[in-house]
Amino acid sequence: MLTEERKEEKKFVKEIESMEENYSRWYLDIVRKADLMDYGPVKGTIIFKPYGYALWEGIQKDLDRRFKETGHDNVYFPLLIPESYLQKEMSHVEGFAPEVAWVTQGGNEVLEERLVIRPTSETIICSAMSDWIHSYRDLPLKLNQWANVMRWERSTKPFLRTSEFLWQEGHTAHATYEEAEEETLQMLQVYKEFAEEFLAMPVITGRKTENEKFAGAVHTYSIEALMSDGKALQAGTSHNLGQNFSKVFDIQFSDQENQLQYVYQTSWGVSTRLIGGLIMTHSDDRGLALPPTIAPVQVVIVPILRGDTEPVLNMVATIEKELKCLGIRVKSDVRDGMSPGWKFNEYEMRGVPIRIELGPKDLEKGQFVLARRDTGDKEFLPIAELATIIPQRLIDIQENMLLKAKTFMEEHIYTADTIDELKAGLIENRGFYESWWCEDIACLEEVKAETGATARVIPFEQRSGSGKCICCGKDSTTTIVLARAY
Amino acid sequence: MLTEERKEEKKFVKEIESMEENYSRWYLDIVRKADLMDYGPVKGTIIFKPYGYALWEGIQKDLDRRFKETGHDNVYFPLLIPESYLQKEMSHVEGFAPEVAWVTQGGNEVLEERLVIRPTSETIICSAMSDWIHSYRDLPLKLNQWANVMRWERSTKPFLRTSEFLWQEGHTAHATYEEAEEETLQMLQVYKEFAEEFLAMPVITGRKTENEKFAGAVHTYSIEALMSDGKALQAGTSHNLGQNFSKVFDIQFSDQENQLQYVYQTSWGVSTRLIGGLIMTHSDDRGLALPPTIAPVQVVIVPILRGDTEPVLNMVATIEKELKCLGIRVKSDVRDGMSPGWKFNEYEMRGVPIRIELGPKDLEKGQFVLARRDTGDKEFLPIAELATIIPQRLIDIQENMLLKAKTFMEEHIYTADTIDELKAGLIENRGFYESWWCEDIACLEEVKAETGATARVIPFEQRSGSGKCICCGKDSTTTIVLARAY
Repeated sequence: MLTEERKEEKKFVKEIESMEENYSRWYLDIVRKADLMDYGPVKGTIIFKPYGYALWEGIQKDLDRRFKETGHDNVYFPLLIPESYLQKEMSHVEGFAPEVAWVTQGGNEVLEERLVIRPTSETIICSAMSDWIHSYRDLPLKLNQWANVMRWERSTKPFLRTSEFLWQEGHTAHATYEEAEEETLQMLQVYKEFAEEFLAMPVITGRKTENEKFAGAVHTYSIEALMSDGKALQAGTSHNLGQNFSKVFDIQFSDQENQLQYVYQTSWGVSTRLIGGLIMTHSDDRGLALPPTIAPVQVVIVPILRGDTEPVLNMVATIEKELKCLGIRVKSDVRDGMSPGWKFNEYEMRGVPIRIELGPKDLEKGQFVLARRDTGDKEFLPIAELATIIPQRLIDIQENMLLKAKTFMEEHIYTADTIDELKAGLIENRGFYESWWCEDIACLEEVKAETGATARVIPFEQRSGSGKCICCGKDSTTTIVLARAY
Repeated sequence: MLTEERKEEKKFVKEIESMEENYSRWYLDIVRKADLMDYGPVKGTIIFKPYGYALWEGIQKDLDRRFKETGHDNVYFPLLIPESYLQKEMSHVEGFAPEVAWVTQGGNEVLEERLVIRPTSETIICSAMSDWIHSYRDLPLKLNQWANVMRWERSTKPFLRTSEFLWQEGHTAHATYEEAEEETLQMLQVYKEFAEEFLAMPVITGRKTENEKFAGAVHTYSIEALMSDGKALQAGTSHNLGQNFSKVFDIQFSDQENQLQYVYQTSWGVSTRLIGGLIMTHSDDRGLALPPTIAPVQVVIVPILRGDTEPVLNMVATIEKELKCLGIRVKSDVRDGMSPGWKFNEYEMRGVPIRIELGPKDLEKGQFVLARRDTGDKEFLPIAELATIIPQRLIDIQENMLLKAKTFMEEHIYTADTIDELKAGLIENRGFYESWWCEDIACLEEVKAETGATARVIPFEQRSGSGKCICCGKDSTTTIVLARAY
């Protein structure tokens, strides 16, 4: 029955460039054809179309719950920051000044002091914290904000790198270094769990090297995911700011002994870049593929309408209602002008995890067809058991997608003992490369110049023992994860 | 038992200026002492502190559900708009150009074309719609976005008028004028129901006069609330844009007869100004008062700790758990250093609808004290019935607060037949004034110059019959609502 539809389907699949052929083109095809975004008029800006924005709403909802469960309050700070604020922390201004947008005029008046559109909000939040924090009783102060930020980027790519992007930024203040460190690591763990449980996107975790850390941090941790082309994606960062900001913004508290102390701070963030990570973790030549947790539509019902359509349409409505009652995000597409094959393709392209097909013959047999986006499998199942089968399949799909991505990542973790080995390896097998490193930044710069691979993290899971630095050959006890990266 | 606590309370209440004495000071005291906001470094900007932002989150959640239920999809458009876009619609640019912030530099490069930080997004959204809409099958297109916007205001007041504010803006496109008009009125109705059901803030509805309509609209409707000082607050607007924007942005579709037509559009918005409206509708000299629907904390439990504290603390924990299970937003304050009286005051100041007091004597009798923020009433009630009493009281409080606000509004709707009558009326009794109007804008300008009152709306509920224009005395069949306004 479905051969015709499948044939028609093939026509559409051609519209997406194959991953193999041109990964970058494939990515752009997906974001456009799954109708996630469009380009804005200003260089490097994008419009989040409904389906793309729904992904961000899903991310927000799940992460926001995790932030609240770990005791953080949402706030909102102003978009515009006086230039003098940015100037206060030296490494911070050096990091951000070259890439900010400047407001120089308000209404008809030329401003006395230029303002920057926030590239991040440490400075304006620290300035407020210095007013709010007086005593140890005011600590810890654990804030988060959901906001738009802007960084004037030279080269941009939808979701992955855009001039304006949406993100959350956590900002906390603590009485001791240890507490701040604990918070920094806790939020990294929240990101890791979120990435794996909600996005089905496995990550490795570790510390950034000195030259890759946040401008103004003592140190930075990150979660790093592996895209299906073997390139790494920094998917979230958590910074221990120490007293770097509290000293220049004068954030002091009197401790239990009534001594004035500077607070210890953290900041941490993830952005709409996660949508890019999600796409490049799961999608394929048929289009987007979404884990059920985040899918705006989890189940689509496509009727096969031949002859007397009423009984089929009635059953479609019944099934839709039943699944809705179970809290499943379901949609039926009973539009007339399009063939079932066209619809199959459309929803595969959009990554809907489960498709239910239902035709007159199925109805006669009391069955429906369940097609899985993740495996492409089709099953004939009894309609009577739908309410138990569908929730179970959604769980199966979620687990399978995570497992598949995990297996892919694990199979693409290699080792390289020399630059030549890394260079050769990267031609055949892109992925994460674990190497020994002498802890000299100069060695990493040489690795980068020679291979294009950068230090992703000093992973928490270190190889035991010792070895020779990948670059200079010196004895080393530290391993580093190297990869080409987005 | 509570006399001492009450005495201590009095001390704190003095900290708020009385409404009678100085309403404006009272308002500022509330927003500061209920810890809703702080001032940002740039003129006219504010920081939403956790308690203030929680109010906005409540508003967002409830409204967002209503928008989705009426078939709108969320999107996100870029913050920055090229100057040339703003220039396209003449009355639009005249209305907004004097009050926008200009970005003239990105990174180190001076921009060729200046960019504005969106004061509203009609122009950038229309530009995209002209790419997206081709056929009648693409219509209606019903979008909404939650965003920050900026208008360079001369005089500002927290929540009510700030340079940067948060809002939602709906933007829709339709095939016919009638459909656009229906959408415009539907969204006004959504706003009205939301204001009354969620904020317990009654409103009157009607059409704005020509000189008060949105810059670029065919006509504008609004909901107008009455603050407790008798001044009006425009709380939400819904605009029928007709083809004003579609003609300049070339948004055309081929209709069912294959003829090219310009779309008809609407836009509508509410902002963080609603928080100001909420405060000035319900609060009093004791501080903020919040309807249970929006209150971040609906019930606070304050133990009276004397002698053996364990049994009381155990019961507090039990009650908290029980209420949480019922889905009630509950918090217990068992802090040691503060007296119960201090806490009573604190939560009244913050507008928590219900306070539960529980001391050792109450426990002996199996009772608790329930104090209502809206009426100040205290009841002694059996702990055993708590799970049925509390949800019921929350409903009672919601209804009572709406009723109280409604009664206040209705009692403050007056009529004025002449400017002198209006002038005299406004001295004694501020409120809404219904007057006959000849429909000449010049008359309203004179009314404003003489009395300070502006035309709020031409109300949907018109007086029947006819009368003399409040200004020129000409025969009129239209009534207008006049008031001093925020």
